[in-house]
Amino acid sequence: MATQRKTVLIVFAHQSPRSFNAAVRDVAVHTLQGQGCQVIVSDLYAMDFRAVATAKDIAGELQNPEYFKYNEETLVAWREGRLSEDITAEQRKVQEADLIIFQFPMYWFSMPAILKGWIDRVFTQGFAFSLQKMYSNGVFKDKKALLSFTTGAPESMFLPDGINGDINITLWPIQNGVLNFCGFQVLPPQIFWAPATSPTSVRKVMLEAWQTRLGALWEETPLSFAKMHLFDMSLQGGFRLRPEVKEQHQGDTYGITTGQHLGKPLLPNNQIRAAPTI
Amino acid sequence: MATQRKTVLIVFAHQSPRSFNAAVRDVAVHTLQGQGCQVIVSDLYAMDFRAVATAKDIAGELQNPEYFKYNEETLVAWREGRLSEDITAEQRKVQEADLIIFQFPMYWFSMPAILKGWIDRVFTQGFAFSLQKMYSNGVFKDKKALLSFTTGAPESMFLPDGINGDINITLWPIQNGVLNFCGFQVLPPQIFWAPATSPTSVRKVMLEAWQTRLGALWEETPLSFAKMHLFDMSLQGGFRLRPEVKEQHQGDTYGITTGQHLGKPLLPNNQIRAAPTI
Repeated sequence: MATQRKTVLIVFAHQSPRSFNAAVRDVAVHTLQGQGCQVIVSDLYAMDFRAVATAKDIAGELQNPEYFKYNEETLVAWREGRLSEDITAEQRKVQEADLIIFQFPMYWFSMPAILKGWIDRVFTQGFAFSLQKMYSNGVFKDKKALLSFTTGAPESMFLPDGINGDINITLWPIQNGVLNFCGFQVLPPQIFWAPATSPTSVRKVMLEAWQTRLGALWEETPLSFAKMHLFDMSLQGGFRLRPEVKEQHQGDTYGITTGQHLGKPLLPNNQIRAAPTI
Repeated sequence: MATQRKTVLIVFAHQSPRSFNAAVRDVAVHTLQGQGCQVIVSDLYAMDFRAVATAKDIAGELQNPEYFKYNEETLVAWREGRLSEDITAEQRKVQEADLIIFQFPMYWFSMPAILKGWIDRVFTQGFAFSLQKMYSNGVFKDKKALLSFTTGAPESMFLPDGINGDINITLWPIQNGVLNFCGFQVLPPQIFWAPATSPTSVRKVMLEAWQTRLGALWEETPLSFAKMHLFDMSLQGGFRLRPEVKEQHQGDTYGITTGQHLGKPLLPNNQIRAAPTI
């Protein structure tokens, strides 16, 4: 356990307080509080959290009411403290948090819309990223984040040779495109495989394993993503791998030259993409 | 042009009628109508389309009001014609459509929440898939679907060696996990790279290229995904590649043994994952 008091934000996206997702959340709340952490829960359905990005998110006058551009309007509104109260409240929680746990049932290989809406609306430009501050120079580089979710499908379907394809690829847009992009230290995902079709005893073991993991969570090594210095971050360089890095890794069948430039596997069972840390 | 009159559904997710996305939509509407197609537009923001999956989506009594399970409740409600009117209206449009075009600005490596909510709520179990009807045996195997979207990032960032990683991987959860899963013939994505930071002349060329593409759209070859017969679709087989298929492709550095089992590249500039059609 860390010496300083940690704050954890759990962004929770299930409709029912009796769901397995709620049980997973409760294990996290109790275990982390037991460690002395402050735990904040945003229960999105219970809050009736607005998922849709509209002009309602900006208080006061729009820059360009004739042609509404969400990213530009929210950037200015964020600078001037004119974002809607529900967004501002969530941004305060994010700022306080040392760790954000996203707890949700997987919907369509991704997050439920209500949680995607939380990302779309809370992680506004300026607050969560800028053209200068992204990836390994990201705004939230001192924070950790973790996807914790349930699936309908069994694990075998999401193995590299499973019909759904490798779970690491399915998670890439979120883990890289949202979390790593904002600078978060991304902890390995906590995946509860098909609890709805598992016996009670198995679900119990799943919750116990989660509790055990939480006990040592602060010491975990984050996932390894390719660092920004490997890329030529100039307009002319096109934000592409530097020629010397590319040359060095030419012929690799995994890692940074394959388009999913992970330094090492996200999940231990992913042998195909295993690569040394870069 | 096809001999039978075609119906096209455009699911449109931008807030502003003056946006480039709206211009792209209008080119599609006019060009397809010019071909004699019936074109239906679902303008999600204008419709104030509800993005969030809740018990409001079911009319009448719930099966289990104490523990709300969205997928189970909507399956029963769909069978009994008790889904909410807004969902039913969209399902009717999907049923009529020979082609669905999803038109949106990319938000966080994915769809805006309002469009994700359309997927979550309209593609209910029973209507869009079942345990028997998925992937190459999917419900919508006689329909085509196409992602048409704008990005903030330039194309180079989404090349296999770009800092955002290969665009094909970013699109995998949608193109495979939603569209291919439901059986759609997935046409190559129409990507408008960074129109907001491009000069008017470039945006004009983009729209002209889209119009040209639409002229021959019905003759396009869909993307190639691994067919279901390559997998052992039994519980014991775990929905994984059949051993003989796996053996045959062992050592491939792309395609079905890499976890993103595409038979050939989605985009012509993706050389790394290029593989013969399987």
